[in-house]
Amino acid sequence: MKIPPVKGTNDYLPAEAALREYIQNSILKTYETSGFERIMTPALEDMENLDKSEGGDNLNLLFKILKRGEKLEEALSEKKYGDLADIGLRYDLTVPLTRYFAGNRQKLFMPFKCIQIDKAYRAERPQKGRLREFVQCDIDILGSTSANCEIELIHVTAKALSAIGLKNFTVRINDRRLLRDLLLGMGFLEGELASVCISFDKLDKIGIAGVKEELTAKNFGAAAIDNLVSVLDKMPIKLESVKDILGERESIAGLEKIIGAVRQLSGGAYEIGFDISLVRGQGYYTGTVFEIESRDFAKSIAGGGRYDNLIGKFIGENIPAVGFSIGFEPIFIILKESGFAIPGKKKKVAVLYGGDICEADRAAEDFRGEYDVALFELPKKLGRYIDALEKAGYHGIFICGKSEGIEVFEK
Amino acid sequence: MKIPPVKGTNDYLPAEAALREYIQNSILKTYETSGFERIMTPALEDMENLDKSEGGDNLNLLFKILKRGEKLEEALSEKKYGDLADIGLRYDLTVPLTRYFAGNRQKLFMPFKCIQIDKAYRAERPQKGRLREFVQCDIDILGSTSANCEIELIHVTAKALSAIGLKNFTVRINDRRLLRDLLLGMGFLEGELASVCISFDKLDKIGIAGVKEELTAKNFGAAAIDNLVSVLDKMPIKLESVKDILGERESIAGLEKIIGAVRQLSGGAYEIGFDISLVRGQGYYTGTVFEIESRDFAKSIAGGGRYDNLIGKFIGENIPAVGFSIGFEPIFIILKESGFAIPGKKKKVAVLYGGDICEADRAAEDFRGEYDVALFELPKKLGRYIDALEKAGYHGIFICGKSEGIEVFEK
Repeated sequence: MKIPPVKGTNDYLPAEAALREYIQNSILKTYETSGFERIMTPALEDMENLDKSEGGDNLNLLFKILKRGEKLEEALSEKKYGDLADIGLRYDLTVPLTRYFAGNRQKLFMPFKCIQIDKAYRAERPQKGRLREFVQCDIDILGSTSANCEIELIHVTAKALSAIGLKNFTVRINDRRLLRDLLLGMGFLEGELASVCISFDKLDKIGIAGVKEELTAKNFGAAAIDNLVSVLDKMPIKLESVKDILGERESIAGLEKIIGAVRQLSGGAYEIGFDISLVRGQGYYTGTVFEIESRDFAKSIAGGGRYDNLIGKFIGENIPAVGFSIGFEPIFIILKESGFAIPGKKKKVAVLYGGDICEADRAAEDFRGEYDVALFELPKKLGRYIDALEKAGYHGIFICGKSEGIEVFEK
Repeated sequence: MKIPPVKGTNDYLPAEAALREYIQNSILKTYETSGFERIMTPALEDMENLDKSEGGDNLNLLFKILKRGEKLEEALSEKKYGDLADIGLRYDLTVPLTRYFAGNRQKLFMPFKCIQIDKAYRAERPQKGRLREFVQCDIDILGSTSANCEIELIHVTAKALSAIGLKNFTVRINDRRLLRDLLLGMGFLEGELASVCISFDKLDKIGIAGVKEELTAKNFGAAAIDNLVSVLDKMPIKLESVKDILGERESIAGLEKIIGAVRQLSGGAYEIGFDISLVRGQGYYTGTVFEIESRDFAKSIAGGGRYDNLIGKFIGENIPAVGFSIGFEPIFIILKESGFAIPGKKKKVAVLYGGDICEADRAAEDFRGEYDVALFELPKKLGRYIDALEKAGYHGIFICGKSEGIEVFEK
């Protein structure tokens, strides 16, 4: 038997599983209280849908499910090796959401405010520390172009992060259209923008000099590059400065509204600021993009944006949409490694019994309001067993016929 | 785009997702309070582990994941068509549990009492109404041969079913060894037993005459068949009658102990009885087998048994084990179709606003203790919108700047 889990996947011990459950429930409860509703879709998705989606690099990381029986034989005998699979595992929750929306829209209240918390799969290179099976955690609002959607998504997501117990985080926000206008104004050409953004997105890692070098290597206009560098030299750039350069724009007015309202809603519990350097990888974003960074852990813990064209392309009708995804796995790692104690988690107590299990269960029931209580038969070597219980995280024991109450382990 | 979900899988609307969540949480909470601890394993499993498992027919229903890159090219160019996949989707949670146990046993408290609630996959023929993606919900006790394990599993599972809101269910219990002893005593041969059990298992469906016919067609000894039929004619057969035939046995003493204790623990909330006709399909059961049937819905809603050899075979060491699996999907269908109302589910309220979202959110916050509150911008056609909200299951509305309190929809 192969003991380790499949490469890039994890088994979770009880304490880890409890932490994952806690994170999921905290998020879910916050979202539900705020009027979002959970939907569920299968992990299996039609290959046709996956292939046609705007998945970018993720399409190279698909887990495909081998056809079976006659279908497989046919594909093999005709050497249609590109046709060995007609089902795949989803690489995100946006493709299933689009399909779900197309199939159920008559039953959905619009704008549709939905929650998805579920597993997705990517054949990432495990050496990068990335998981091949991971939980995604999205809220989306479908069917509205209003900037109030962004305000709500950002505030509710920040509330969910606070509910988990995270503090000291900052929302960064930008608008793809603004970035585009700015780059065009600097002298970059329409066809160069995507490539410029890819380099620009690396600013955090390679710095201004690195961005300049990369753009120069790509043979973009020297004047445009100089314009960009002179702006970057002034980082952080205020939204007002961008307005001075570009004049009034819908995208700027939208960002001003969002930043103002979120600041008010936050009540100072978290920060929000404009960041012209925020790009976000996905090609499908059409307007605002936003990210939340934990200042304590210098890690991005949520990201999203507006994608007004994606669903329309799929279902042949214009459906504006905006979504925010919490980084479940990074948060799990952060909390696990920082020794986070789950608030309100019931302590474990062991009831040990030598005689009748019915009596032992009656004793246990008395404690089950306050504790999680496990029954164990009295072992031969009681001392060693008690040590093991303490080591396993039990709060105390009750020995039937002997204890007067729970004997709490001394810490 | 292909709109319907992949064959044999389901999308779940918000009300369905809420019901699934409720069922899962009710079960989980009961199990945790009773001292079981949840573990999590990946849906992806090594093909080697799946192939070597005692999965019986399930091994013909495996979803296999196509190899990628060079590995795939190699298998194709060498025409190793049986070797196109090295990972598969798990068909149950017992294979992963075994692997998990082997990998983590030093970190686990013994006996190990664990919960698993997670998805499994089988390429069932969808025309049978079976799902290809489904939630399984197991508790297992590893490392103890005591009949107290059975008592605990049965009682805790019955408690979980009650916590969901199910009533009127009956536990049926048998012991594989008893059935075996009885059949041998009737004159069936050792090598015939598995096949006799397969026919016997159909008693519910084909009746005594059907079982007789099938066994006769299999050319088993006429005297043995007659012996069996004469016992079946006396159904339901009491455990005492079996004791009269076979004399004292460990298996009978075990069943007596389990039935007596469970009856006492049940406090009359559910019934338990011996049923010689209970076989249960899986080949790996070594002792007790049990099942819970809903009398209201004439449906099996949980099943399990003792499998003392399965884990040992895998990890090369004797680890007794017993498990009980709740039929999550049948219960979901039962509750959905009976129009079950989730107890304690917060009602939904809509806050409609025309002006500032911050003000609207403040108003909504006041209601969020009692209700799940969604914000919506005031639409152009308010009357129609309000009708739609009512139809979508909202309990009432609050219009900012107009309502004094929540305006509850009249039912």
